[in-house]
Amino acid sequence: MPKSRLEAFSDGVIAIVITLLVLEIHIPQLPAHASNAEVLGVLLRLFPSCAAYLISFAVCAVWWVAHHNFIHDLREVNRPLLWLNNLFLLWLALLPFPTALLGQNPGQPVVCALYGVVGILTGGSFSMMRWYASGPGALMKPEIPDAERRRRFRVSLLSPCLYLAGVTVSFFSPYLAIAIYAGIALYFAFLSLRTRSALASK
Amino acid sequence: MPKSRLEAFSDGVIAIVITLLVLEIHIPQLPAHASNAEVLGVLLRLFPSCAAYLISFAVCAVWWVAHHNFIHDLREVNRPLLWLNNLFLLWLALLPFPTALLGQNPGQPVVCALYGVVGILTGGSFSMMRWYASGPGALMKPEIPDAERRRRFRVSLLSPCLYLAGVTVSFFSPYLAIAIYAGIALYFAFLSLRTRSALASK
Amino acid sequence: MPKSRLEAFSDGVIAIVITLLVLEIHIPQLPAHASNAEVLGVLLRLFPSCAAYLISFAVCAVWWVAHHNFIHDLREVNRPLLWLNNLFLLWLALLPFPTALLGQNPGQPVVCALYGVVGILTGGSFSMMRWYASGPGALMKPEIPDAERRRRFRVSLLSPCLYLAGVTVSFFSPYLAIAIYAGIALYFAFLSLRTRSALASK
Amino acid sequence: MPKSRLEAFSDGVIAIVITLLVLEIHIPQLPAHASNAEVLGVLLRLFPSCAAYLISFAVCAVWWVAHHNFIHDLREVNRPLLWLNNLFLLWLALLPFPTALLGQNPGQPVVCALYGVVGILTGGSFSMMRWYASGPGALMKPEIPDAERRRRFRVSLLSPCLYLAGVTVSFFSPYLAIAIYAGIALYFAFLSLRTRSALASK
Repeated sequence: MPKSRLEAFSDGVIAIVITLLVLEIHIPQLPAHASNAEVLGVLLRLFPSCAAYLISFAVCAVWWVAHHNFIHDLREVNRPLLWLNNLFLLWLALLPFPTALLGQNPGQPVVCALYGVVGILTGGSFSMMRWYASGPGALMKPEIPDAERRRRFRVSLLSPCLYLAGVTVSFFSPYLAIAIYAGIALYFAFLSLRTRSALASK
Repeated sequence: MPKSRLEAFSDGVIAIVITLLVLEIHIPQLPAHASNAEVLGVLLRLFPSCAAYLISFAVCAVWWVAHHNFIHDLREVNRPLLWLNNLFLLWLALLPFPTALLGQNPGQPVVCALYGVVGILTGGSFSMMRWYASGPGALMKPEIPDAERRRRFRVSLLSPCLYLAGVTVSFFSPYLAIAIYAGIALYFAFLSLRTRSALASK
Repeated sequence: MPKSRLEAFSDGVIAIVITLLVLEIHIPQLPAHASNAEVLGVLLRLFPSCAAYLISFAVCAVWWVAHHNFIHDLREVNRPLLWLNNLFLLWLALLPFPTALLGQNPGQPVVCALYGVVGILTGGSFSMMRWYASGPGALMKPEIPDAERRRRFRVSLLSPCLYLAGVTVSFFSPYLAIAIYAGIALYFAFLSLRTRSALASK
Repeated sequence: MPKSRLEAFSDGVIAIVITLLVLEIHIPQLPAHASNAEVLGVLLRLFPSCAAYLISFAVCAVWWVAHHNFIHDLREVNRPLLWLNNLFLLWLALLPFPTALLGQNPGQPVVCALYGVVGILTGGSFSMMRWYASGPGALMKPEIPDAERRRRFRVSLLSPCLYLAGVTVSFFSPYLAIAIYAGIALYFAFLSLRTRSALASK
């Protein structure tokens, strides 16, 4: 199985997930002759849903870039990796569900924790792919040195660990947990910007 | 018509079906000041929907791999095969419907049977493609020996037969039928892992 | 602009439309302790929605094949053709709407007529593409003789004419109109099977 | 990162957005034995939703062509451009939300303004991409002269400026604002038709 097929299928799924997120912003029913102030009030109550959309869009975009980098590191793909990738897509494709819940109940601890749990599962299955490709699968390009492989695996572990922190914080301060989730996406987005420079300077 | 077009279109449809499945998990309305225990209770009632999501995701992923293997076996495609493929996609694209029904009514015999009927139709049209390509269409790569062609057709027949067993069991024990459907997906996933090893050892 | 881009975008839109159709089959709310007979009764009331799904799936599949044949006939594409193609996709992407209406109100004359009107607009814009590419745009491959170009344009005119007949019939016998719509899809599917043989015999 | 990946992902997202728009036309519940006139009346009340569908479809199609032209102008892509592109897709993927709101409340000033605000954000992030690629990123093909780069950047600024005009007009005459939004899409569609001729005449 060539890498291109796996990449095209994963890209397709990620592109659809990122576009389906908008369907979770429910269209409010506006009263027939509402004043502008009333309509603005109704729309402002959609702020949590819109914020959840923005965060999950960023999460998806970060995973798209990370997935692309990972596939780029591979010499070839095999069946076990294909199924680990399907496991990763399974959790990523679930994202619209906790996003919608979070948008409708932003201050609810259990809902905040659930968002983080899906993050842990997505990040954890991504780390499993990195671990399998570097270790038992031996799928990494030979020119990537061992130390660099281990470093990339460790960086991938950061994501589920930070989500775990978010889940724990959820029960004390749900809004802080949401800030952590947004921070994870922003951190990895900036990391991806810097990584490039690092590569270019070599 | 080149194989790549048929494959790209089928991949697109499968990627969309697998990603639409999440829309069938309905977002529950949480009471305004619910306690964590109450919210957890509401979310746990979504367990059947989530289980149906997991099973159907696995079913789709298995079909994606099986479809890819099948196209890989072909020398070329012709119009009759194109229309048999459209028939296969018709039943596969229907999957979100019985998945949603099953998630909302997991113990209902008729609903369990319906899920299996869609499985029979999907698997049956896939077997028809295998049969047509090996027999009247003569589309298989010449290097695949006759015995191997027949073996692959027989393996493809396994899927509709197992779904038929699931449909029958539905009326005695719906939950056992669901376990059979999950088992079919897991069995073919593991089969696909082993197949690769078999090929690699040749 | 290369042909491949236009084709990939159109394929993407058609694959999404064909997969979204299933969302228009609404999941019925089953009573908590319904008997199998009651559940079967509820599911049988979904028959019109399922029939509408099947017809529209076939319509989409026929358009996919027809669109592919058309693009295959072209030497190159230009901006006017790109915008005619966007017009064609606009009407095709609208299909889930009349499909859902028809599935929920199969015997309603106006609803039946609306389904046909969307068919006329889709087929009409496809004919416009054929006319533009053969005439003012001069985009057809030079090896296709003039008589053949005219013949293919006339065949493409058949579809809006048959839909117009369906619209007219809607007001006398809605179910006959639905049969006509199903017949149009089946007719073009069989035509596409035959066309291939004709080409192969040359 | 090759241009083709960015283009394929963006094309996928745009194709999905353009096809999801139809889901925002809500299927009305028709009374059981309604007369044709009553049904026609119910369907005519969907006119604003259908008009919003048409306008947003044209907006998406224009962005698809503009995005393609922009990528065509580039020598290569880098990480900052990738993230600016993700920002552009974030706003474009939001389009079904203001479209649905506008379709259900066409004469509401705040709703009309919101549609324009999303247009400003989409157009503004597109202009940012043009600015970055021409200036700090230095990603444009060397054969495009400086004056032409500046001209294309200025043309891209036109879109957010016109949307800003639409937002302002919304509070005086919502229907005029909708006409402006439709006009922006039509203007850029015709511009794209003319641009081609200009290029061909060189």
